[in-house]
Amino acid sequence: MKRYNITPNGLKIFITIILLIAVNNVIAQNKKHMVRIAKIEVDPTQVDAYKAAIREIGEASLRNEPGVLMLFSVADKGKPNHITIMEVYADSAAYEAHRQTAHFKKYKETTKNMVRSLELVDADPIFSGIKAGAFSE
Amino acid sequence: MKRYNITPNGLKIFITIILLIAVNNVIAQNKKHMVRIAKIEVDPTQVDAYKAAIREIGEASLRNEPGVLMLFSVADKGKPNHITIMEVYADSAAYEAHRQTAHFKKYKETTKNMVRSLELVDADPIFSGIKAGAFSE
Repeated sequence: MKRYNITPNGLKIFITIILLIAVNNVIAQNKKHMVRIAKIEVDPTQVDAYKAAIREIGEASLRNEPGVLMLFSVADKGKPNHITIMEVYADSAAYEAHRQTAHFKKYKETTKNMVRSLELVDADPIFSGIKAGAFSE
Repeated sequence: MKRYNITPNGLKIFITIILLIAVNNVIAQNKKHMVRIAKIEVDPTQVDAYKAAIREIGEASLRNEPGVLMLFSVADKGKPNHITIMEVYADSAAYEAHRQTAHFKKYKETTKNMVRSLELVDADPIFSGIKAGAFSE
């Protein structure tokens, strides 16, 4: 059976190359991707509960759905009940599948009395890049 | 000298593990990170030139600045001159350093007659996750 002989230094270089490939991949664009910005205003008394719901659906979506590529949700510092979510799906079919999942339905049910307004903006990517491991520590 | 013996299948498993670690790192949060949403309205006749400027500063920033962790810029489908950029810096010092770079100054000079309005919103991350290689192809 064929085997590779790799020295410890060779292994370090190899890991570095893999991580650089991961970073560069991120920078390329895919025309089929569906990018959406969700702008949500939440009842100010229920912000913490809403954030917990966001984390729950975010984790479930990325873990279980191959077509959910990125979710990035933030709260305005000045107005913590103003939430913005940048969402990237592999394509519109992946988005439709997302809306049929149990975790999406649970999220909608849990948050229906928390959300004051919801604006969904479809968008075209211009440039995106992320450093591998950027969000670690 | 110590050497590792790795089979082709072992190598595949190893690459998969490295990529999974990269993905999981992304999901964790770092309290020091500075997250900002830039909302930019551009002169509709100069959208293409503005997008080129965004790509140029985006690539230069990610390549040259360790403290620029993520840039994700999109144009509204309905209003292509409405641009949103989600930006993540390692900390506020990294952001200040970014503003002093030659590529930032060039971007500001190039785009000063393209930008109609600029709103900068500081934000706190709630949940973020990205699949490794999500933006490839």
